[in-house]
Amino acid sequence: MHNLLQGKRGIIFGALDENSIAWKTAERVHQEGGTFVLTNAPAAMRLGNIAALASKTGATVIPADATSVEDLEKLIDQATEILGGKIDFVLHSIGMSVNVRKGNHYTNQNYDFTEKGWNVSAVSFHKLMQVLYKKDAMNAWGSIVALSYMAAQRVFPDYNDMADNKAFLESIARSFGYFFGRDKKVRVNTISQSPTATRAGQGVKGFKGFIAFADKMAPLGNASALDCANYTVAMFSDLTRMVTLQNLLHDGGFSNMGVSQEIMEMFE
Amino acid sequence: MHNLLQGKRGIIFGALDENSIAWKTAERVHQEGGTFVLTNAPAAMRLGNIAALASKTGATVIPADATSVEDLEKLIDQATEILGGKIDFVLHSIGMSVNVRKGNHYTNQNYDFTEKGWNVSAVSFHKLMQVLYKKDAMNAWGSIVALSYMAAQRVFPDYNDMADNKAFLESIARSFGYFFGRDKKVRVNTISQSPTATRAGQGVKGFKGFIAFADKMAPLGNASALDCANYTVAMFSDLTRMVTLQNLLHDGGFSNMGVSQEIMEMFE
Amino acid sequence: MHNLLQGKRGIIFGALDENSIAWKTAERVHQEGGTFVLTNAPAAMRLGNIAALASKTGATVIPADATSVEDLEKLIDQATEILGGKIDFVLHSIGMSVNVRKGNHYTNQNYDFTEKGWNVSAVSFHKLMQVLYKKDAMNAWGSIVALSYMAAQRVFPDYNDMADNKAFLESIARSFGYFFGRDKKVRVNTISQSPTATRAGQGVKGFKGFIAFADKMAPLGNASALDCANYTVAMFSDLTRMVTLQNLLHDGGFSNMGVSQEIMEMFE
Amino acid sequence: MHNLLQGKRGIIFGALDENSIAWKTAERVHQEGGTFVLTNAPAAMRLGNIAALASKTGATVIPADATSVEDLEKLIDQATEILGGKIDFVLHSIGMSVNVRKGNHYTNQNYDFTEKGWNVSAVSFHKLMQVLYKKDAMNAWGSIVALSYMAAQRVFPDYNDMADNKAFLESIARSFGYFFGRDKKVRVNTISQSPTATRAGQGVKGFKGFIAFADKMAPLGNASALDCANYTVAMFSDLTRMVTLQNLLHDGGFSNMGVSQEIMEMFE
Repeated sequence: MHNLLQGKRGIIFGALDENSIAWKTAERVHQEGGTFVLTNAPAAMRLGNIAALASKTGATVIPADATSVEDLEKLIDQATEILGGKIDFVLHSIGMSVNVRKGNHYTNQNYDFTEKGWNVSAVSFHKLMQVLYKKDAMNAWGSIVALSYMAAQRVFPDYNDMADNKAFLESIARSFGYFFGRDKKVRVNTISQSPTATRAGQGVKGFKGFIAFADKMAPLGNASALDCANYTVAMFSDLTRMVTLQNLLHDGGFSNMGVSQEIMEMFE
Repeated sequence: MHNLLQGKRGIIFGALDENSIAWKTAERVHQEGGTFVLTNAPAAMRLGNIAALASKTGATVIPADATSVEDLEKLIDQATEILGGKIDFVLHSIGMSVNVRKGNHYTNQNYDFTEKGWNVSAVSFHKLMQVLYKKDAMNAWGSIVALSYMAAQRVFPDYNDMADNKAFLESIARSFGYFFGRDKKVRVNTISQSPTATRAGQGVKGFKGFIAFADKMAPLGNASALDCANYTVAMFSDLTRMVTLQNLLHDGGFSNMGVSQEIMEMFE
Repeated sequence: MHNLLQGKRGIIFGALDENSIAWKTAERVHQEGGTFVLTNAPAAMRLGNIAALASKTGATVIPADATSVEDLEKLIDQATEILGGKIDFVLHSIGMSVNVRKGNHYTNQNYDFTEKGWNVSAVSFHKLMQVLYKKDAMNAWGSIVALSYMAAQRVFPDYNDMADNKAFLESIARSFGYFFGRDKKVRVNTISQSPTATRAGQGVKGFKGFIAFADKMAPLGNASALDCANYTVAMFSDLTRMVTLQNLLHDGGFSNMGVSQEIMEMFE
Repeated sequence: MHNLLQGKRGIIFGALDENSIAWKTAERVHQEGGTFVLTNAPAAMRLGNIAALASKTGATVIPADATSVEDLEKLIDQATEILGGKIDFVLHSIGMSVNVRKGNHYTNQNYDFTEKGWNVSAVSFHKLMQVLYKKDAMNAWGSIVALSYMAAQRVFPDYNDMADNKAFLESIARSFGYFFGRDKKVRVNTISQSPTATRAGQGVKGFKGFIAFADKMAPLGNASALDCANYTVAMFSDLTRMVTLQNLLHDGGFSNMGVSQEIMEMFE
C-alpha cells in the first residue's frame, strides 16, 4: 500500500456487507492511511454487519437517514469532531427503488414509490452536499464521489426507475460540482460502475443475464467491487485534483463497445 | 405548406402565449394539416390566451393538471373522442421550478419546492406516457416529443434545479421510449432547444446574459420558437419514423462549440 | 408526397445500385420536387446502373473522383450550371477501406491502405466542402449531410479502420460546419445510420451477425435505406434549418440501448 | 511520493522541454518509482534538452520517428532490453499540424500537409500499438495513454485540422483498445487535457484567448502540465486497471460547463 490518503478524513455512506462497494472502499481507504466515519440508514444497518467493518478499520459508525437534512447536519458535525477536522473525501453509495422492490414494471409505476426512490437515491446526494457546503465542512481539494450506473445514459430494461434516478444524481454532481469547485475548490464526480453482485444489484430482476452480457461485451470483463474501491481511492487522492463534474466510466470498456466478437458470433 | 401532418391527431401541452414554443408548434401543425387538442394547467391558462389559439387552429382546449394521473386519463379519453381516433403526436412543453420562482440558490434549495418542480417538469412526462401506454391510445408510428434544455448535460448556473429535472426528463424519454417503441412502435424523443425568450425563459435570472452568449457562440445563432416548431413538425411527420430514444440538439450548433471566434476575441 | 424540396438543387454522391442509401435518397428527393446531379467515382459507376436512376429522376450524371480537388471543382462548376443556380443540398455517401477489402485485421494494418481509405472516406468530405466554400457555391440555409456509422463512437470489431475514418469524418462535419454556418448560413451534419444491407455493408466480415444483433437491440429494429432517405429529406428541408454540427443517430433507438430484453434473455 | 509505479517499466514519447506534459510526467513517474525510456523525433530533440531530463530521471534516450514502423520496432526492442522486461506503461504525447505551422486556415487546407499532420499526430499511435501488440511487448494490466484535446468533440476554431486528428486518435484508442484489452489485458485511454502552455500549445493562433476563456469557464480553472502528469501517474498505476476505451476529461470541469457565472456577466 502507498499511503495515498495519509492524513485525509472522510465519510463513507452505504457499506452494508462485504459485497458492498462502500465496504471494499472503506477497507482500501483504511489501507491507504485515510480515516473516516461510516454511516448508513438505521434500517440498512440491521441487515449487515457494519460494526465488524468499523472495528477492522478503526472507524466510528454514525447512523443517519440520508433523506433527512437534520440527520445529515448531525452527521457532519459529529464526523468533523471525531475526525478532528474538515472532510477531505465523501463516498455516496446509496440507492433504492420501491417500484423495483414491489415488482412494479417501469410502465406501471406507483408514483409515491417513484418519489421515495428518487428522494433516497438522488436527492440525498444534493442534501448531503448542501449541508457540507453550508457548513463549509470540506477542505480545499477535497473529493466527493457518488456511485452511478450506465442506465443513466442507456436503457437496461430491468433497472426500472433507478435509471432516471441515476440521471438525476449525475446531474446533481455537475450542478453542485460547479459551485463546490468554484467556491471551495472541491471536486464532485460520479463513478459509473460495472454491474456488481452486491445485495442491491442482485435484487434487480434479470441481474444474472445482464451481468453475464456485460462481462462478454467488455474487453476486460466487468469491474469488481474491489476494482471500484481502488479507483475510488485514486479519485480521493491528490493525483486527480483537476477532475470534476465528470461521470467516470469504470466498466472494463463496456460503455464504448458496440458489440464484441463473442456476442456477434452468437448471432451469426 | 406541405400537408405533412394530414390526417394526424395529437395533443399539445404548454401553449401559454404567442411566445411559447407550444403555441408556435400548434400553429405550424395546423398549417400542416394536423388536428389536435390543446391542454394546459388551469392556473397557466389564466395567464395566457389559449382560447385565441384554439379558435385560430380549430382546436379544443381541455384543462388538465399534468401531475394528476386522473386528469391525464380524462384528457386522453376526451381527446381521442374529440379527434375521432388514436393519437399520432404529443408535445410535452411543461416546466417549472419553485426554487427559481422563490429566488432560492441551487445550493440553498427548499426540498419541498424541489419535489414540486420535479413532479411538474419531469414526472408529468412519465405519467402522461404511462396513461397513453396503458390505454393503448397511440397509433403505431406515433411520435412523442418533450422539450428539454442542454442544462441536462452541462452547467448553466442560473438554470438551477431545472437542470436536474431536465436530466430526469430525458432519461424518462429513453426508459419509456424503449417500451413504447418495442410494444407499440411509437417513438419518444426530447428536443434540446436554444434558450428562447418565452415567458418561462425570461423568468430565469441572468437570462439576457446567456441568451446573448449562446447567440454569439452558435454558428447559426440561437434557434427561435418558430424554428423549434418547424423542427417539431419534422419529428411528428413520417420522415423521422426511426429516430427514437434521442435527445435532439436544436440550437444553431451551440452544443458542439468549444468557443467561437467572436467570444475568443473578447479574451485576447 | 409533399413538395418539401420544391425549387431546391443538389448533388448526391454514392448511388451505386438500388440498395444504396444514396439511391433511395435520390428517388425520395425527386419525389419531393428537388433537382440534382448524381456523381460517383468512375470505377464505382461501372459496378452499378446509375444511368437508370438518372433517367428515372431526371438527373445528370457527372463522374468525379472525390479525392481529386480538380474533379470536385469541375463537378461543382458543371452542377451549378446544369441546375441553374447555387446548391441547396449535398449528400456525401462515400466510404471504402482497403484494409477491409484485403482482409487485413485492425491490428495488422497496411498503412498505405489506411491512408487510401482515410482519403476516400473522410478527407473527400473536407475537399468537397472546401471547394463548395471557396466557390461560394451553396445557397444560404443549404444543408450538407454525410453518412456515418456508430463505430465512430463505439467498437464494432469488424468495422476495422472505417471506425477511425468515420470519427474523422464526423469531426470534419463539426469543424467545417462552424465556418460554413457562420460565414454562409449553411448547415453540416452527419447521419449515423443503422447497419444497412448495401453492397458496401455486405462486404464487411460478420455483417450478418451484427445486423441481426442490432435489430434485436433496437426497440424499433434497424432503420432501412428508405427510412434513411426519408430522414435525409427532412434534413434537406427547411424544417431543420437550425440543426448543425450534429451527428444524428438514425437507428431505431440502438445507440441509447444498454441491453434489450430479448438479448438479455439469451444470457439468463 | 508513494512508490505507486515501483517495478513498472515504460516508454514516454514527446518530452521536449520543461513545459511539456511528457516532461512533467517523466519526472513524476520517476518519483513514483517507475523506470522508462524517453523518445522523441530526432528533429524535436534538437529543440529541447531531453538529455537533462534523462540524466535527472535515470532514463535512456532513444530517438525514433513515430511515423516509421521500423523505428518503432527498434525502439521497442531496445526499450525492453534496456529496461529488462516487458512494458507496463506508455505515454503518447505527439502532435503537429503543418497547416497550422504554415498558417493555412481550416477552410484552405493543403492536403499534403493534412496527410502529414494526420500521420504524425494520429496514425503514429496506431503504429506504436500495432508494434507493441505484434511483438507482445506489453505486460498484462499495462496501461497505454495518449494525450488528446476536447477539440475532438467540439469546435475550437484555431485548433484547425488538429481537431480532426485528435478525433482519429481517440477512435484508435477505442478500436485498438478493444483488441489490446481482450487479448493482452492492456488498457488504452486518451486524456483530454486543458489547454496547456507548452511549446506546441503556444504555437496555436489565438492561444492566449482560449486559455483565458477556458480558465474562466472551468470551476477549478485550467489543469496544468503537472496536474496532468499526476493524473497520468494514476492512469499508469494499478488503481485504474478496469478503465479502458475511455477519453478522460482532465480540465477542471470545463467540458461539462455550458457557461460560468463570470462569463455570463460579461454579456449582461
